[in-house]
Amino acid sequence: MGIAELSTAINTGWILLGAALVFFMQAGFAMVETGFTRAKNAGNIIMKNLMDFCLGTPIFWIFGFGFMFGGTGKLFGGLDLFTSAGGDWATLIFQTVFCATASTIVSGAMAERTKFSAYCIYSMVISAFIYPISGHWIWGGGWLSQLGFHDFAGSTAVHMVGGVAALIGAATLGPRLGKYSKDGKARAIPGHSLTLGALGVFILWFCWFGFNGCSTVALTDGAWETAARVFVTTNLAAAMATVTVMCITWLRYKKPDVSMTLNGSLAGLVAITAGCDVVSPAGAAAIGIISGFVVVFGIEFLDQKLKIDDPVGAVGVHGMCGAVGSLLVGVFALYSGNEITREGLIYGGGFRFLGIQALGVVCVIAWVAVTMTIVFQIIKHTIGLRVTKEEELMGLDRPEHGLTSAYADFMPAVPTILGAGVPAPVKEVPAPIKSESPIPAASQDTPSEMHKVVIIANPSRFESLKNALNEIGVTGITMTHVMGCGQQKGASEYYRGAPVDMTLLPKIKMEIVVSAVPVEKVVETAKQVLYTGHIGDGKIFIYDVSEVVKIRTGERGFDALQDE
Amino acid sequence: MGIAELSTAINTGWILLGAALVFFMQAGFAMVETGFTRAKNAGNIIMKNLMDFCLGTPIFWIFGFGFMFGGTGKLFGGLDLFTSAGGDWATLIFQTVFCATASTIVSGAMAERTKFSAYCIYSMVISAFIYPISGHWIWGGGWLSQLGFHDFAGSTAVHMVGGVAALIGAATLGPRLGKYSKDGKARAIPGHSLTLGALGVFILWFCWFGFNGCSTVALTDGAWETAARVFVTTNLAAAMATVTVMCITWLRYKKPDVSMTLNGSLAGLVAITAGCDVVSPAGAAAIGIISGFVVVFGIEFLDQKLKIDDPVGAVGVHGMCGAVGSLLVGVFALYSGNEITREGLIYGGGFRFLGIQALGVVCVIAWVAVTMTIVFQIIKHTIGLRVTKEEELMGLDRPEHGLTSAYADFMPAVPTILGAGVPAPVKEVPAPIKSESPIPAASQDTPSEMHKVVIIANPSRFESLKNALNEIGVTGITMTHVMGCGQQKGASEYYRGAPVDMTLLPKIKMEIVVSAVPVEKVVETAKQVLYTGHIGDGKIFIYDVSEVVKIRTGERGFDALQDE
Amino acid sequence: MGIAELSTAINTGWILLGAALVFFMQAGFAMVETGFTRAKNAGNIIMKNLMDFCLGTPIFWIFGFGFMFGGTGKLFGGLDLFTSAGGDWATLIFQTVFCATASTIVSGAMAERTKFSAYCIYSMVISAFIYPISGHWIWGGGWLSQLGFHDFAGSTAVHMVGGVAALIGAATLGPRLGKYSKDGKARAIPGHSLTLGALGVFILWFCWFGFNGCSTVALTDGAWETAARVFVTTNLAAAMATVTVMCITWLRYKKPDVSMTLNGSLAGLVAITAGCDVVSPAGAAAIGIISGFVVVFGIEFLDQKLKIDDPVGAVGVHGMCGAVGSLLVGVFALYSGNEITREGLIYGGGFRFLGIQALGVVCVIAWVAVTMTIVFQIIKHTIGLRVTKEEELMGLDRPEHGLTSAYADFMPAVPTILGAGVPAPVKEVPAPIKSESPIPAASQDTPSEMHKVVIIANPSRFESLKNALNEIGVTGITMTHVMGCGQQKGASEYYRGAPVDMTLLPKIKMEIVVSAVPVEKVVETAKQVLYTGHIGDGKIFIYDVSEVVKIRTGERGFDALQDE
Repeated sequence: MGIAELSTAINTGWILLGAALVFFMQAGFAMVETGFTRAKNAGNIIMKNLMDFCLGTPIFWIFGFGFMFGGTGKLFGGLDLFTSAGGDWATLIFQTVFCATASTIVSGAMAERTKFSAYCIYSMVISAFIYPISGHWIWGGGWLSQLGFHDFAGSTAVHMVGGVAALIGAATLGPRLGKYSKDGKARAIPGHSLTLGALGVFILWFCWFGFNGCSTVALTDGAWETAARVFVTTNLAAAMATVTVMCITWLRYKKPDVSMTLNGSLAGLVAITAGCDVVSPAGAAAIGIISGFVVVFGIEFLDQKLKIDDPVGAVGVHGMCGAVGSLLVGVFALYSGNEITREGLIYGGGFRFLGIQALGVVCVIAWVAVTMTIVFQIIKHTIGLRVTKEEELMGLDRPEHGLTSAYADFMPAVPTILGAGVPAPVKEVPAPIKSESPIPAASQDTPSEMHKVVIIANPSRFESLKNALNEIGVTGITMTHVMGCGQQKGASEYYRGAPVDMTLLPKIKMEIVVSAVPVEKVVETAKQVLYTGHIGDGKIFIYDVSEVVKIRTGERGFDALQDE
Repeated sequence: MGIAELSTAINTGWILLGAALVFFMQAGFAMVETGFTRAKNAGNIIMKNLMDFCLGTPIFWIFGFGFMFGGTGKLFGGLDLFTSAGGDWATLIFQTVFCATASTIVSGAMAERTKFSAYCIYSMVISAFIYPISGHWIWGGGWLSQLGFHDFAGSTAVHMVGGVAALIGAATLGPRLGKYSKDGKARAIPGHSLTLGALGVFILWFCWFGFNGCSTVALTDGAWETAARVFVTTNLAAAMATVTVMCITWLRYKKPDVSMTLNGSLAGLVAITAGCDVVSPAGAAAIGIISGFVVVFGIEFLDQKLKIDDPVGAVGVHGMCGAVGSLLVGVFALYSGNEITREGLIYGGGFRFLGIQALGVVCVIAWVAVTMTIVFQIIKHTIGLRVTKEEELMGLDRPEHGLTSAYADFMPAVPTILGAGVPAPVKEVPAPIKSESPIPAASQDTPSEMHKVVIIANPSRFESLKNALNEIGVTGITMTHVMGCGQQKGASEYYRGAPVDMTLLPKIKMEIVVSAVPVEKVVETAKQVLYTGHIGDGKIFIYDVSEVVKIRTGERGFDALQDE
Repeated sequence: MGIAELSTAINTGWILLGAALVFFMQAGFAMVETGFTRAKNAGNIIMKNLMDFCLGTPIFWIFGFGFMFGGTGKLFGGLDLFTSAGGDWATLIFQTVFCATASTIVSGAMAERTKFSAYCIYSMVISAFIYPISGHWIWGGGWLSQLGFHDFAGSTAVHMVGGVAALIGAATLGPRLGKYSKDGKARAIPGHSLTLGALGVFILWFCWFGFNGCSTVALTDGAWETAARVFVTTNLAAAMATVTVMCITWLRYKKPDVSMTLNGSLAGLVAITAGCDVVSPAGAAAIGIISGFVVVFGIEFLDQKLKIDDPVGAVGVHGMCGAVGSLLVGVFALYSGNEITREGLIYGGGFRFLGIQALGVVCVIAWVAVTMTIVFQIIKHTIGLRVTKEEELMGLDRPEHGLTSAYADFMPAVPTILGAGVPAPVKEVPAPIKSESPIPAASQDTPSEMHKVVIIANPSRFESLKNALNEIGVTGITMTHVMGCGQQKGASEYYRGAPVDMTLLPKIKMEIVVSAVPVEKVVETAKQVLYTGHIGDGKIFIYDVSEVVKIRTGERGFDALQDE
C-alpha cells in the first residue's frame, strides 16, 4: 500500500464523516420545523421530514444521481438507473444526503396545511428531477460550472433550490387559517417548543461543519488547509449573522427576539455555504452581517407585504440568503484553493465573476420556479394540495395520521394516560326513563331540578369512576386537571438534596350535571369507587343548576341532559 | 514514521469516531424509549438508560471484555479482569459501547413497570456475561466465527441478544396495567412525546453510520471502499424499511402511522447490520422491505396474539429484525470484502451459508433465552422484578426516584413553579370552632350554609394567597390553570416581527368551599393579598353550595369541610 | 505528496472533528440548562447559550486568540487583532469552540434572574480577556506551562474558569426568589424537563470524546495511542462518577436522584479532562469516584450552607470538579505521552507535581475570582445585573424577549393556538347601559341578579365565540382546557396497530358571569356560533351567582362586572 491509497483512505473517511453529519441535518430540520409550529401538527411534520429523506433516498439512487452525474451534457447528466456511481460509493451517499437537504427545506414553509400524500409526491419529484438537473449545471459539469459559477457547498444548488420550491409551495397553498386578520394584518402564530427549535438550530450548525467542511471531499494535497479555513469562515458567518439579527430585532421590536435570532444563525450558515472556501474570515463576517439583514427584512417582507405564510421562515433563510450568499461570492472571493487570487469585486476582481454568479442564481430560480409551479398546479388540480378547513383547525395529526396527540400526556385525548387497573369496558347502558314533567323554560324563578355534582379525586381513579358513572346512566362528564391543596401533605421527597414542598398535589375534577339520575346515586357510586380510607380520597360538592341548553338540538333542561 | 504507522493512525481515528457515534446511540435510545412511553415514567426511563451504560462500562472492563476476547476458546474467551486489551485501547472503547447497546435495548420492552434495582442487576449480568459469551462465539474467534457465521456489525451479536432478553423480560413481567381489556383486547397507550421519539430515531440512524460503517475498524487496504458501501447499504435499507412500514400502515389502518413508521426505520437499520458489508444496494433495499413487513406484523403478533406488552417495540425491532437480517445475509450476500463472490442464495450460492446463519441465530436465541429466563426468575423470586400496582399507577418517577414530575411546569406538582417571593411557611392553624347547629341532610330545600368562593388571579400571587388563606383557617383549595380574557389587554409584543395578540392571559382559578370560615373574611383576605391597584388584579365570585361529602369519612356539610 | 503532508492531513482532520464536536457541546449546555430550570425562562436561557457563542466567536477572533497565543510572554500572549492564527485555521476554530465552552458554563449558575444585556457584556469580557489570559498561562507557553502544570484538555483552563466565574456571578446576584424559605432552608425548584436535561448530558458526553480525545491535536506519531487511551479513561471516569452519585443519593435520600445523577456524569467528565492522557483506566475510575463525592457534597454545601443558588449545579460540576480533577493529575499520573513515567503521588512520584497542580489551580481561581468580581460589580452598579422582582416572577421570556411562552400550546398565552378561521378583530364595544338599581350587598338572601354561563364547546370554536361574545358586551371570560366525555364517541383510530379509545375528547370550558347582558342573549349568541348540527356541538349551563367582587376597585355585584 502506498501514499496514493493512503490518501484515498483519508479522503474517503472525510467524505463519509461529512455524509453522516449531513444526514443528521434531517434531525435538525425536523426539530426546527416542529418546534416553530403548533403541537397539533407535530406528528405530521415529523412524518414529512422522515419521509422526504426515506422517499428521496431510493428515488435519488434510481433516477436522480444519473440525471446529476451520469454524463457531461450542458443541461443534464444521463440515465443511470439504480446507480452504482461507478463504484464510488462515498460520492453516492454524500450526494444522497445533500439531495435530501434540498427537499426537506420545503416542508417547513408548507407546514400545518399541506396534504401528506401531496407532500410525498412533490418531494419525490424534487429528488428525482428538479434538484439533480440544476445540480448538474453547478456540480455535474453542466453549463454553469463551465462558465465558472462558484457554489462550493450549495447555497444555490441545495438551499436556494429548496427555498424557491418552498416559496412557490407556500404561495400556491395560501396562508394558514387565522394567519391574516380581516384587514390583512399578519398575526403571530407562535411555535409550540422554542427549546426543540433551538436544539434543531444547534444540530444544524454542528452538521454544517460537515456540509461545508467535508465538501472539500478530500484532506490531502492541501485540502486540509481549505477545510480548516472553511470551518472558520462557516462558524464566523453564522455567529455574525446571529448577532446582527439579535441587534436588529432589539432595535425594531425593543427586545431581542428569540426565534428570529435562531433563524439568523441559519441565515448566516446558508449564505456562507457558497463561498466558504474562497472568502477570508473578514469576508465571512461581512457575509454574515449582510445575511442577518436579509433574513429579518426578507421574512417581514414575505410575511407582511407579500402575505405569503411561511411558518418557519424557510424562504427567507434558504431562498433569500441562498441567493444573496451566492452573489456575495462575486464580491468577497479572495482565495482560489489555497492561493490568494482576489477575484471578488472588493478586491478589484471586477464585475465578471459577480455577473456569472448573478446569472446562475437567476437561472436556477427560474428553473425551480417554473417546474415547481407546474408540479404544484398538477397536484392541486388532481389529488389536492391542501387539507380541508376542518382538518387544519383540528391539526393534521388526527385526520392525516390517526394520532390524537403527539404529546398524549400533556394534551390528553385518551384516558390511558391515567393508568387504570384493567378497567371495565364502557357498557351500553339503557337510556334512563324520561320524566313526564314539563320542561321548565329558562327562568331564575323555577326551582332547580338539575344538580351539578363536582368530584375532586385522585387522577388514578378516573377511569374506574367514569365507568361506574356510565353504568348508572351518567354519560356527560367534564374532566379537568387541577391541583389540590389540602390536608394531604405528601411524604418528603428530595430533589438534588433539597426537600420538595408537597402541599399541592395533582387531582382531577369531574363535573357532572344530572337530572334523571338522582344525585344521591351519583354520590353513593362515587363514594364506593373512590373510598380507600386513606387521606386524599377526595370530596364531592353539589350545586344547583338553573338551566342547561344542548346546542345541537336546542333542547333545554331535563331533555338537554339525555342521550338519544 | 512510515506508511504502516500512518495507516494505524488513520484506522484508529476511524474506530474512535465509531466509538463516539455508537456511544451517542444511548441518547437515541433514551429519547425513543422516553418519547414512546408516558410522562409519569420519564425520569425512571432516563435513569435506566443512563445506568445501563454507566454500570455496563466498568463491568465490561472488569469482566466482559475478557470473556469475549481474552482467548480463543470455542465457547468463551478467558479471564482478563480490569483489562487493558493488550494496550489496544481503541478496541476496548469500541467494544464497550457496543456492549452497552445490547443492554439498553432491554429497558424499552420492560418500561413503565420494572423495579429500578432489578433493572440495575440484570443489566450488569448482560454486560458481564451473556453478551460477551455469544459475542465471543461470533466476533471473538469462537465456534460460530469458525463456522463462517457472518454478522458484520451485530444484527445477532448486539441487537438480537438485546431483543431476546427484552422478550423474556417483558413476558416475565406481564403487561402494564390497562394494556389489555377484560376480554383481552390490546389497547393503545400512546407515548408522551412523539417529537422526542422521532429525535431519538434520527439520532440512532446518524449513529448507525458509525455502528456499521466504522465496524470495518479500518480505512486503509481497501477498507475505505467497504466502509463507503456500508454507508450506502445501511442508509438504503433504513429508507426502504421506513417507506414499507408507512405503506403497510396506510393500507391496514387507513392512515400512515407515525410511531410505527419510526419503528420501521430502526427495523431496517437492525436488519441490514449483519450484512451491510456483503450486500449490494439492491440487496439492501430488499432487506429493508422485508424488515418493514417483519416489524409491523411482528409487533402486532406480539402485542395482540402473544399478549406480550412491549411499550416501544424493542422485541419486534431488535429481536425479530435482528434474526431476520442475520438470516438474509445467507440470501443476499454478494461481496466478500470488496470482491464479488456471490455466496448468497439468490446468487446461486446454495443453502450452506444460509444454514450456518440459521444455526447461529437459533443457538444465540437459545443461549440468551435460557440464561435470561434464569436471571429474571432469580430476580423475581428474590428482590422482585416488578413495582407494586400503586407505584405503577402513580408512575415510577415518584416512588422509585422521589421525582414528582420530570416536567414540573407542565404537570405541576409543586408550588415552586409559581415563583413566590420568599413565602411564609405553612403555619399550623387552630381548628376553627365547630358550629353546634345540626348538619342539614343533602336537600335542595335547605338554605345553603356553605359557600364556594372562586378567585381568579395572577399566577404569581398564588403562593402568597394560599398561605394567607391557610392562616385564616382555609385548608382545602383547588387550583386550576385557566386563561383570562378581559379588559387587561397586554402590551404589544412581537414574535418574528408580527404582533402577538395578548387578550388572553394565563390566570389561576382558586376554588374554596367554606362554612366555618366566614365568606367575608375570605374575600377581605384575598383582596388584601391580591390588591396592587393595577388592571389584572382579578375577581372574586361567590356561589351557594347545596352539599359537600368527604369521601373518606362520609361526613357531609359543615363537618366534611373541617380538618381533624 | 509525502508522508509529512499526509500526516498533516490526518491530524488536521482529527482537529476539525474535535472542533465540530466541541461546538456541539453548546447544544448540550443549552439543553441541560433549559431542562433544569423553569419553562417561563426557557427562551431566555436558549438565547443566552446561543449568544455567548455568537458573541464569543468574533470577540475571540478579534482579541482573545492574540492574548492567548500571540506571543510567549509569561503572563499573556500578545496583540493579534482579527487573527489569522498564522494561517493555522484548524487551531483557530479549535480554540474558539473551547473558549465558548468556558463562557457558556456561567449562564447556568446565573439562570432565571440575570439581565440579558448584562449577560452579553460579561460573556464578551470572559472571551476577550479572562479566559485567554489564564489560558495563555496553561496552554500558550505562559508561566504555568513552563512550570510543568498539566491540564490536558482544560479541567482548569476551561471548566474551572467557567465554574469560578459562575460562582462569583451567582453569589453577586443572590438566590432566585423563593429559593430559600424565611428561616433560610433551601427549597427545591425542579426543572421543567428532565428529558431535555438528560439529552443535554448525553450530548455533552458524546462531545467530550472530541473535547478530550481530539485534544491530542494529532493522530500520527503515536498520538493515536494516546487518543484511544483518552477515550477509555474519559468514558470510564464519567461512568464511575455517575454510579457513585447514584449510590450516594440512594443512601442519603433513600432513592436514586435523577437530576443529581445526571450531574454526576458531567462531574466525572470535567474531573478527568485534565489528566485523561496520563492516567490508567484504574486511575480514571478513581478520579470518577472522587468527583462523584465532590459534586454531591459540593452542591449541597453551596446550596444549603453557603446559600448560593446555582440552578443547574454549574459551580459544583465545573468549578469544584475542575479543581479537584486538576489536583488529582498529581496523584494518578502514570503516563507521559505513551511512556510509563509514574509521576503521580500514588506511584511514588512525590509531591512536587501535585504541588505545581495545586499552585496552578489556586492562581487561576484567584485570577478569575478577582477579575470577575470587578466585572460583575461594574455591571451591577451601571446597567444592573439582575432583573426586577416582577420580571423574575413573570419569567424572563416575556419582559426580556417579548415571548409569551416558549411552549405556546402547553402554557397557552395567545389565542392563535386554537386556530380560528379568519376571525373578526376584537371590536370596541359600547359599554352596556348601567342598571339604575342599587347594588345589593353580599348576602345569600338577596335574589341573585347575576348569572354564570358555562359553555362547553369544541376548542376550534373558541376564537369565534370570544369575538361574538365581545360584540354583545361580554368582556370577561375565563377559559379552561378540559376533557369532555360524552356521547361523542370518536372514530376508531389506530396507534401502532392497537385501537385508540376515543371517549374522552379535548374541549374548552368558557365561564362568563353576566349581569347587564341578558343571559338569553349569551345563550342565543353561543348557539348561533357553535351550532353545526353535528354531535359534539357542546352544552350551555347556567348557575346563579351570589356575589362578585372586583379586587382592584373593591366594586361588588353589577358594578364589578362592568368595564370602565
